[in-house]
Amino acid sequence: MILSLSFAFFATTLFVSANVIPKNSEECRTLLGDHLIEEIAGYSKIRDVILNYVLEGDFTSKTYDELAKFVDKFGARPSGTDTLEQSIDYMIQLTHDEGFEDITTEELEVPHWTRGQEEVTMLEPRIKNMAVLGLGRSISTATEGITAQVVVVKNFDQLDTFSDKDIEGKIVLYDPIFTSYGETVQYRSLGATRAAAKGALASLVRSITPFSINSPHTGSQNYGENVTKIPTAAITLEDADLIRRLYDKGEKVVLNIKMFSTYDTQISRNTLIDYKGTENPEKLVIVSGHIDSWDVGQGAMDDGGGLFISWAVPVILKRLNLKPKRTIRSIFWTAEELGLVGAYAYEEKHRNESHNINFIMESDEGTFAPLGLAVAGNKEARCIVAEILKLFTSINASTLVEDDSPGSDISVIIKTGVPGASLHNDNGKYFWFHHTEGDMMNVEDEHELDLGAAFWTAVAYIIADISTDIPR
Amino acid sequence: MILSLSFAFFATTLFVSANVIPKNSEECRTLLGDHLIEEIAGYSKIRDVILNYVLEGDFTSKTYDELAKFVDKFGARPSGTDTLEQSIDYMIQLTHDEGFEDITTEELEVPHWTRGQEEVTMLEPRIKNMAVLGLGRSISTATEGITAQVVVVKNFDQLDTFSDKDIEGKIVLYDPIFTSYGETVQYRSLGATRAAAKGALASLVRSITPFSINSPHTGSQNYGENVTKIPTAAITLEDADLIRRLYDKGEKVVLNIKMFSTYDTQISRNTLIDYKGTENPEKLVIVSGHIDSWDVGQGAMDDGGGLFISWAVPVILKRLNLKPKRTIRSIFWTAEELGLVGAYAYEEKHRNESHNINFIMESDEGTFAPLGLAVAGNKEARCIVAEILKLFTSINASTLVEDDSPGSDISVIIKTGVPGASLHNDNGKYFWFHHTEGDMMNVEDEHELDLGAAFWTAVAYIIADISTDIPR
Repeated sequence: MILSLSFAFFATTLFVSANVIPKNSEECRTLLGDHLIEEIAGYSKIRDVILNYVLEGDFTSKTYDELAKFVDKFGARPSGTDTLEQSIDYMIQLTHDEGFEDITTEELEVPHWTRGQEEVTMLEPRIKNMAVLGLGRSISTATEGITAQVVVVKNFDQLDTFSDKDIEGKIVLYDPIFTSYGETVQYRSLGATRAAAKGALASLVRSITPFSINSPHTGSQNYGENVTKIPTAAITLEDADLIRRLYDKGEKVVLNIKMFSTYDTQISRNTLIDYKGTENPEKLVIVSGHIDSWDVGQGAMDDGGGLFISWAVPVILKRLNLKPKRTIRSIFWTAEELGLVGAYAYEEKHRNESHNINFIMESDEGTFAPLGLAVAGNKEARCIVAEILKLFTSINASTLVEDDSPGSDISVIIKTGVPGASLHNDNGKYFWFHHTEGDMMNVEDEHELDLGAAFWTAVAYIIADISTDIPR
Repeated sequence: MILSLSFAFFATTLFVSANVIPKNSEECRTLLGDHLIEEIAGYSKIRDVILNYVLEGDFTSKTYDELAKFVDKFGARPSGTDTLEQSIDYMIQLTHDEGFEDITTEELEVPHWTRGQEEVTMLEPRIKNMAVLGLGRSISTATEGITAQVVVVKNFDQLDTFSDKDIEGKIVLYDPIFTSYGETVQYRSLGATRAAAKGALASLVRSITPFSINSPHTGSQNYGENVTKIPTAAITLEDADLIRRLYDKGEKVVLNIKMFSTYDTQISRNTLIDYKGTENPEKLVIVSGHIDSWDVGQGAMDDGGGLFISWAVPVILKRLNLKPKRTIRSIFWTAEELGLVGAYAYEEKHRNESHNINFIMESDEGTFAPLGLAVAGNKEARCIVAEILKLFTSINASTLVEDDSPGSDISVIIKTGVPGASLHNDNGKYFWFHHTEGDMMNVEDEHELDLGAAFWTAVAYIIADISTDIPR
């Protein structure tokens, strides 16, 4: 996943356990009324049917097994590649095989950035090869690379203390210590632009992670307008610290950076699976994950897990013959990693019907053990979700996080006023693997995926079936 | 560090907290007598002087700072390289600058195995590049590499279920799940030999670690006699699992392995720093770590930390003007990683004086927070050490682990009957970084190194100063 900078700077995230704040509960009771609260509580039997089927019944391990088959077959699925399109075809067939006919794809133009050879070598004060991953859309260097002295800064403020003359002809290394992804990722997203504005030849960023085994993390970045595009890449925590220590001691650190890539655009597809509602088929409860991944690792975590628990929602409901009043739409977003490209295309295409989106959900921050939901919406909307979450205390997934911009793709739609939620899960190690070669099946756990699929399905079903729409 | 297979198979390791087993304490009291026990307890003041000097005085952070300077300056220090020899010269100068004159080096012939280009590519069922590290002393492939089908086995027993005909012309992948290093490392150490005996063209091993961010772990291996030498390397947990899943589903997995290396021998040196005893200068208490490292990472953990806390022992004592009765010898072993080569040379050269080694200590399993000592020796020897460890409850370093083959280099000397100990430390993550590119300064912690240096120094001083020799 990528996170928008609006989230990074402005979102206020409050953790509210649905069960432990009586004052909040009282407010919700007044807002919702006893009747709706009782109605929601009445879904406990359907919840049990779904949980039992996934945790102890025929669907046990199915999410993990299908994810493993998929990931092992295709590996990485970068935007614009044939592999991504083949993986989309595979998902369509897999869903078709479950008896679904209502499968639509919507074409759009997507970026196709292809990584070539990449090398960073410290030349002074001694020779050391450094692990590197170019950032998305980075331009190439010349064949011989860029050889220049390094200036190390902790943040943009520190960069601004240098005159343009100090930076011209240099390589800027951003070395921000990870606090949160939202706060730290700006040095990856905007670092090249800010360094170029001061005349740097290239920029490097300390990988956006709290932990490393010399593992570089790629990710998206965008060149600002009216500045020279310069090559930009991530190095590891270890090498960033090494360079900083040398730099702080007054050593002259000289690097050679060679990086090559190509860029064009291709056609890809968002995929929409509709499980039609019995009473209000025009109204949608959307569950989603993105099918594209970075070119490193295999996108098992980012976002294979989210893709497969969202695939599982209509499949589980159909197998159980559970038919909600509203339509459940499962969307497999394309080209998330290079800028939520599939989501923007969907929002534009479906703008006129967006009033029909009752609630939109996405899982793109890991599918570790589910803890609840991060919810955007007005107070009444959050109260309804909080009541629903009370049904999941037995699996420890009752926490409601107030978040004005949850998810990655869905943030594009939520910012138009649609209420929605992202899976809140036990993802403390998410950024250890995020956008690295380590994003492979080993990160995933069978039982946690079962919990996620069961929770995701039951929540979507209840929202799609209750007597009231989620208010805006 | 490497661990000998004798340790792997036969050592019994018992954790005994020096403070919590009264029965043991009672036995020790009978064995040692009240007088010796009181004498040991009487070292509390000197312990405080050392702990204060390192934890709160002028030596605070010194161990970390000197280690960082050293590691940043030299990086990896593989056996047989000029870099290793320059790093030895540096350590001699650093020690000389502290006013030591009694510095000896002892030359020996060491292996010089140099890694060249290495690539493992899965060709079927799909193309995937795999992270790889050749194992020490592995031979090269031909230029075009070895292309062959994979047979996956969990262990040697499973390999033996295959006929030679099944294995001939294949690549064997050992995929043992990590239990302990001692138990699992045999598939790295002996894998090539066992696979070659059945006609394999090459062997791969799942990296010897419980955790990975797609990080391969190198390490030593030895070709047995009378078998064909075949190329051998480690791949990551993630790729081993991927191959195993495909293999278990009946897929034909074909790999191409290209790996190149050179091998010769060079001259290196063990380094001996003597801090002469006041009453029995011929009697030695040895503290030690190895100065060579693998070629990946920078040997900050393995064994820079052990090297520097052992360097610190005479330095701290000299600075504090603390002069024990026996001589403290700090040894920087060379060429540990390719088979304890420096230690074997020392043992051979000094065999006639080995009765003078009162006690031998090594730190080569990390310098995380010290917890105590892993001790080899007879009951009386262990009782003396247990009494000494009681002095370190305040820093939580009082645990005595009974271990018949502690350490790596020193195991060579301990097996001749010399009592000794290895640093027992909070090294639960040691194997996450061991023999990887991630063995860099980021693994090390300033305060934990201070604790280690203080503990190591105080223990060595007390053993070198008490009225009784450590009995054999």
